[in-house]
Amino acid sequence: MNGAESLVRTLVAGGVDVCFTNPGTSEMHFVAALDRVEEMRSILVLFEGIATGAADGYFRMTDKPASTLLHLAPGLANAQANIHNAKKASSGMLNIIGEHASWHLKHDAPLTADIEGLARPFSHWIKTSANSKAIAQDAVRAIQESRKSRIASLILPGDTAWEEGTGPAATPDSTPAPRTSGAVEQAARALMSNEKKIMILGGRALRGKALEIAGRIAGKTGAVLATQFFSSRVERGAGRVPTYRIPYFVDPALAALKDFRHFVTVETREPVSFFAYPNKPSLLKPEGAQVHEVCPPGDDSLAALEALAEAVGAKASDAPHQERTSDGLPSGKITPQAIAQILAVLIPENAIIVDESLTTGRESIGVTAGASPHDWLQNMGGSIGFGIPVATGCGVACPDRRVINLEGDGSAMYTIQGLWTQAREQLPVTTMIFANRAYQILRTEFAGVGAGAPGPRAAAMMSLENPTMDFVAMSRSMGVPAVRAETCEDLIRAFKAYIAEPGPNLIEVVL
Amino acid sequence: MNGAESLVRTLVAGGVDVCFTNPGTSEMHFVAALDRVEEMRSILVLFEGIATGAADGYFRMTDKPASTLLHLAPGLANAQANIHNAKKASSGMLNIIGEHASWHLKHDAPLTADIEGLARPFSHWIKTSANSKAIAQDAVRAIQESRKSRIASLILPGDTAWEEGTGPAATPDSTPAPRTSGAVEQAARALMSNEKKIMILGGRALRGKALEIAGRIAGKTGAVLATQFFSSRVERGAGRVPTYRIPYFVDPALAALKDFRHFVTVETREPVSFFAYPNKPSLLKPEGAQVHEVCPPGDDSLAALEALAEAVGAKASDAPHQERTSDGLPSGKITPQAIAQILAVLIPENAIIVDESLTTGRESIGVTAGASPHDWLQNMGGSIGFGIPVATGCGVACPDRRVINLEGDGSAMYTIQGLWTQAREQLPVTTMIFANRAYQILRTEFAGVGAGAPGPRAAAMMSLENPTMDFVAMSRSMGVPAVRAETCEDLIRAFKAYIAEPGPNLIEVVL
Repeated sequence: MNGAESLVRTLVAGGVDVCFTNPGTSEMHFVAALDRVEEMRSILVLFEGIATGAADGYFRMTDKPASTLLHLAPGLANAQANIHNAKKASSGMLNIIGEHASWHLKHDAPLTADIEGLARPFSHWIKTSANSKAIAQDAVRAIQESRKSRIASLILPGDTAWEEGTGPAATPDSTPAPRTSGAVEQAARALMSNEKKIMILGGRALRGKALEIAGRIAGKTGAVLATQFFSSRVERGAGRVPTYRIPYFVDPALAALKDFRHFVTVETREPVSFFAYPNKPSLLKPEGAQVHEVCPPGDDSLAALEALAEAVGAKASDAPHQERTSDGLPSGKITPQAIAQILAVLIPENAIIVDESLTTGRESIGVTAGASPHDWLQNMGGSIGFGIPVATGCGVACPDRRVINLEGDGSAMYTIQGLWTQAREQLPVTTMIFANRAYQILRTEFAGVGAGAPGPRAAAMMSLENPTMDFVAMSRSMGVPAVRAETCEDLIRAFKAYIAEPGPNLIEVVL
Repeated sequence: MNGAESLVRTLVAGGVDVCFTNPGTSEMHFVAALDRVEEMRSILVLFEGIATGAADGYFRMTDKPASTLLHLAPGLANAQANIHNAKKASSGMLNIIGEHASWHLKHDAPLTADIEGLARPFSHWIKTSANSKAIAQDAVRAIQESRKSRIASLILPGDTAWEEGTGPAATPDSTPAPRTSGAVEQAARALMSNEKKIMILGGRALRGKALEIAGRIAGKTGAVLATQFFSSRVERGAGRVPTYRIPYFVDPALAALKDFRHFVTVETREPVSFFAYPNKPSLLKPEGAQVHEVCPPGDDSLAALEALAEAVGAKASDAPHQERTSDGLPSGKITPQAIAQILAVLIPENAIIVDESLTTGRESIGVTAGASPHDWLQNMGGSIGFGIPVATGCGVACPDRRVINLEGDGSAMYTIQGLWTQAREQLPVTTMIFANRAYQILRTEFAGVGAGAPGPRAAAMMSLENPTMDFVAMSRSMGVPAVRAETCEDLIRAFKAYIAEPGPNLIEVVL
């Protein structure tokens, strides 16, 4: 059994049984091993950023790492923007990066480059596997790292892949000891004080039992329960503990937070402005407020929240729960508010919302708080081109749930190739493209950074008109059925029909 | 005048008057400056890999650097694969990478990452501009670097952009002293010997006066005049000095080179296998053969070739010139050979061919050696997704010449968004998509690396069927007119019509 097959069998034995792949010549032995290891599900993508975004979505929905297979340094380069997003979301991932055979590197062939150097800014763990006898053990280490919500980059030289290996190695089960931070007692005192306090949740604290316990703590102590503007995955909707979302822009965020004296953070850090603006602060808490970190990002907060609940004496009955609400279905012209109202009524039970809607969804999505229960995933790294790939990974992870990808038109075009993989794998993804035909967010930010009013040349750099893109034709060209919605009635009809289909589809929502 | 405007005016004054851009919030002051500096042509792209590929094409056709504007680390990440290709082609480029304001970095906002670390593997020169008073001088240095066929990465923090600057700085004209390598005499002796010798040209040695002089040297000495399999830009066709192309695969390359005792290299290095294969050598020259480097890659070889011509006593009349040849137009089924024959007849005078055709064009393009004179550009870095962006840059550089982009279907999908920019700028680009519906090259390489015959699961990773992509619909969806050709007659008709149009268009060539 060669090194490549030893690697694939080690991955599968360690529970890493999905690979999002865009291979090249140097990865052919890995591809050949797929024929012999049926347990590995290998999914072809047309661009490497799809692979890593999909692995991010897969991790968020399963808490299990997927692998990716990338072609040398340029393949990794194409993958990096969505590795960045995954890293900021504490999504573990195991990237396998092909490399020339060790003895070929010194000749500086066209594809030769510094893969380790390239991987460093976005990886927690990097290793070039020295030879075919070492690869199985290196894979064990990579599995362990990626299970711990970390980015593992395992570089696989050609000779390591094709020479005789050891066969698979077993990865020990790792049950990390629950960590309770020293800040629990301090946070409990703050929460029981009479001062205004806010508890901000991130990561796994926004799901399941952890969220429920956080709700009890908030109900008992009168703390506001909040999320950052962006969260990796929130379980929300009717029956769940509701949370307040801290605003995106600096001025409303400062206003919203100005009275709080205590910030209790759970799997997140104190709120920070997304961008810097002239004469505006980076930190959003008021002067003199205290931060109590109960659990850092990437750790599992459940034990800490249980300890905190005990310390403040919170009971099950203290937790508030969201009621099912809806304002009814709108008609006529499509607006951001109308889209949110339609989603509030029509989001199917247990849906997964992947939100890269930026301006269109940004301020109105709160209307969906009382929709049927659903998961809501957002971009934690700010690198555009997140939605289609992450939705792809969610579809692979959860074939029995409907994935709804809210997508800006500008954002969609960074990784539009992902639609093809959705068609090929017949994934249950409905993409809504919000076609405002602009980088609309930049029009807002232009004034926000003090650049004044754009003249015609600056305005042209934020416009997606001339030519207008036809997302219906584009989607169909990659095998994904699509329609255009120009009124609320169109949108409601299309959405109802499409979420009932088994495979992927797309609605171009003209704004 | 703020730092951003000081930067833009310094660029323009230094001859860098094109910017391929995909900006974000942190770059809004640069965008605002475009309104005040009309001499800067700013071209919007939908994905950063288009920007850097376009800058590569622009440099190859003008010998002048273009600038790109990229959004923080993820924007640079998306741009890197085509920076890699440009670096391997010795194409200079000036990348401006936006960064958070200096005081915002410590808060680790979502888009924060190590930009310098990320830039390092593919940049020759990197600088984070410390403040708005320094940016104009930093830009001067970046211009000087990029003029020297180097990748310059200038990182622009928000406060450097928006605070008061110095106004523009002047970049001194740089006329690098012509370098004649010490190997000229040694090469001259080898060329005048009775042993078999080959002179391999790269870079600017494949154009204009340098190519002509190389032809004289070869004619005088009996050396074979050759190119690597991939070259950055070759002036070829009727009336030009013809060159022999060293084969891609190791076995035919070894066979072709086995009798040569002397390898004279000019702006390139000795031939190396593109990939490593089990039990095959990396170096393609026979044992005991000598290499004489007359000029390293990236340097200008003209002076060295002039010295060499004098040393061997070559005269103008010694140079061979290619005759106009053609086999006539084929009919019926479209094959790689038929495509090459059609191109041989129909390539318009002075066309620019951007070749990312891989399997379809790889072995048959030699048929076009006797076509009308044209420039032929290839991928020097091996990172796929090169063709559409580079053709875009050529169209910007040479609005009065026809650009013909020979593109594989798999390759096209990495950077398909470039078609939109071609439509927006109405660039004179005809794209031919060779739709064999496979990563055909991998089918060949699979056996080549000793992986045997692919089973169904491996084969699926190399197939682009299921679903079949409709490149006609995809192209039209981005504003580029398109037709499908299923026979030679279709292709001839479409090609004749399209190369006579002023704007972009696309032919899906079904194989």
